[in-house]
Amino acid sequence: MDQKKEAQSIEELGEFGLIKRLVKTSKESNSSTVFSVGDDCAVLERNDQCYTLISKDVMLENIHFDLMYVPLKQLGYKAVSAAISDIYAMNGKAEQVLVAIAASSRFPLEALDDLYQGIHHACAVFMVDLVGGDTSSSVQGLMISVSAVGVVEKTKIVYRSGGKPNDILMVSGDLGRPYLGLQILEREKAVYLSNPQIQPELERFDALVKKQLMPNARKDVVELLANLQVIPTSMIDISDGLASELLHLCQSGSLGCSVYENKLPFHEETMLMSSEFNLTPLTCAMNGGEEYELLFSVSQEDFDKIKGNPYFTPIGYFTPKEEGRFLVDNAGVAHELKAQGWRHF
Amino acid sequence: MDQKKEAQSIEELGEFGLIKRLVKTSKESNSSTVFSVGDDCAVLERNDQCYTLISKDVMLENIHFDLMYVPLKQLGYKAVSAAISDIYAMNGKAEQVLVAIAASSRFPLEALDDLYQGIHHACAVFMVDLVGGDTSSSVQGLMISVSAVGVVEKTKIVYRSGGKPNDILMVSGDLGRPYLGLQILEREKAVYLSNPQIQPELERFDALVKKQLMPNARKDVVELLANLQVIPTSMIDISDGLASELLHLCQSGSLGCSVYENKLPFHEETMLMSSEFNLTPLTCAMNGGEEYELLFSVSQEDFDKIKGNPYFTPIGYFTPKEEGRFLVDNAGVAHELKAQGWRHF
Repeated sequence: MDQKKEAQSIEELGEFGLIKRLVKTSKESNSSTVFSVGDDCAVLERNDQCYTLISKDVMLENIHFDLMYVPLKQLGYKAVSAAISDIYAMNGKAEQVLVAIAASSRFPLEALDDLYQGIHHACAVFMVDLVGGDTSSSVQGLMISVSAVGVVEKTKIVYRSGGKPNDILMVSGDLGRPYLGLQILEREKAVYLSNPQIQPELERFDALVKKQLMPNARKDVVELLANLQVIPTSMIDISDGLASELLHLCQSGSLGCSVYENKLPFHEETMLMSSEFNLTPLTCAMNGGEEYELLFSVSQEDFDKIKGNPYFTPIGYFTPKEEGRFLVDNAGVAHELKAQGWRHF
Repeated sequence: MDQKKEAQSIEELGEFGLIKRLVKTSKESNSSTVFSVGDDCAVLERNDQCYTLISKDVMLENIHFDLMYVPLKQLGYKAVSAAISDIYAMNGKAEQVLVAIAASSRFPLEALDDLYQGIHHACAVFMVDLVGGDTSSSVQGLMISVSAVGVVEKTKIVYRSGGKPNDILMVSGDLGRPYLGLQILEREKAVYLSNPQIQPELERFDALVKKQLMPNARKDVVELLANLQVIPTSMIDISDGLASELLHLCQSGSLGCSVYENKLPFHEETMLMSSEFNLTPLTCAMNGGEEYELLFSVSQEDFDKIKGNPYFTPIGYFTPKEEGRFLVDNAGVAHELKAQGWRHF
């Protein structure tokens, strides 16, 4: 009867279950709160035409990044890119970021200068303003938290939950390269640790490594969708791998889906390099993450406006929930998408 | 000539110097950015009548709190209170918070439940909505970052910089109790560590300890100022001790000040307990912190509306910058306020 003692562990709950549990008792006191936990951003009332979007991300050393191979400039860039990606995922325009850092005494001032150089660089590229934050010391390691603020027209906001059966699922760009970039960095680290005399061999992999270290949030995709006059019915950014994001969209919209391996967009490098790591491009896409590409659905009516556009690839479609959530591989075998993503497949 | 090598250390710069250095090259790309780094909050355009206020705070275990004597429920409460205090410090109304936590595997699910119970409790007390955030694991310790969002009428926003010579400096509540609460907790911890058989003696100090563990942001003060039709000319919350906050207001407004020890509001407990620690009430106020009382200035014209109000105490006034920044002690001796605050006095 002692339910408290029966509580699941954090591992069992997972990140999303944990957030659901911890924030579930929240009640809203303010009419300006339009939508809270459960999407890429919180949605707040702004004025007659627009909502304000806010997201908050945390990156910790040795959890989210390894300073053995992540240069601080690129880390700063990535922290901003990752945070504002949440704004684009709701079809918004990122406008401001607040950055809090905590660093242990092993970081000299020059290291923090480098980190902020990357932050400022990303702010310039994506035209967002660094408007505040916090600095603190830490007992151990480096922590960066970025809050992103953006704006979206009320008639153009896209939630995760808006998909309908038969809507076409699409992704921007290509999939899997950041994951391969990470494999390369981890391999070179292992080589270096076993023999520090050996110079890491990274030049050949520049493009893949850059995809991992300096990912670009898809500001351009949101602008392109506006130019095409397409408002997706649902959207999310691919930060935890395609499988996980597909499930988020399906769960939010109470939908099923069918997605096809032979439709997934892979770069030539992904085809070549994945075999070097005994991986398939499919595994890199489903199991990867930190792509910051956008996964979205469009209605059949809108599909004509966007099909054939080289920036986007249709990969499948939503189905009624009872039809299940499947990835159909190149052999024609349908694999059920699992809550844990591709990892435990 | 190699200026990079001549860079000061982080210790020399201090927190405020560090923020200034790291964010100084920021250029603003968005017209919605009204005011960025340098006040309690960033100020963003919202609509014709109002601005949005945003602040961001980070609290780390063993830097900002010690879980040997800080219960997680009270820590959650304090994290919210501290974050929204920045909104009140600009005369705003706090409406939403986003909370990110990172916790190592030593924290069971029940511990995080406790933490969030405190967060929800504070949200209910201050009528703010928990609208989002992030959870992550950490290699070591607990980290909490709270971003607070609020609103303020454009005609009522109060910056740190708005003071004028002869404006009266005032504080809400009384000063020094949170600092004494901390001394008590540290003393009992030392007793416990030297002999775990001895029960900590805390009951007698309940009120002081609560001031440290569960400080209340002064939502009520902002409401009271509105009722009194007083718009302060400058304002800040007392998070780093009175000396430091006075200097912030003086520096932001290019002002001097004269503040009087015999005007400072001390609770009876502060008078009694400070001597037990060989401290003076003055040291507790100047050197303390985490009060979350509001320090503000009012014009001579507005002073009549507020003087005699038991919630507020006039403690001195602004002077022209060239007259310097002084604390006049009970013996009539004027001490110059130093950038490091009372600590190095």
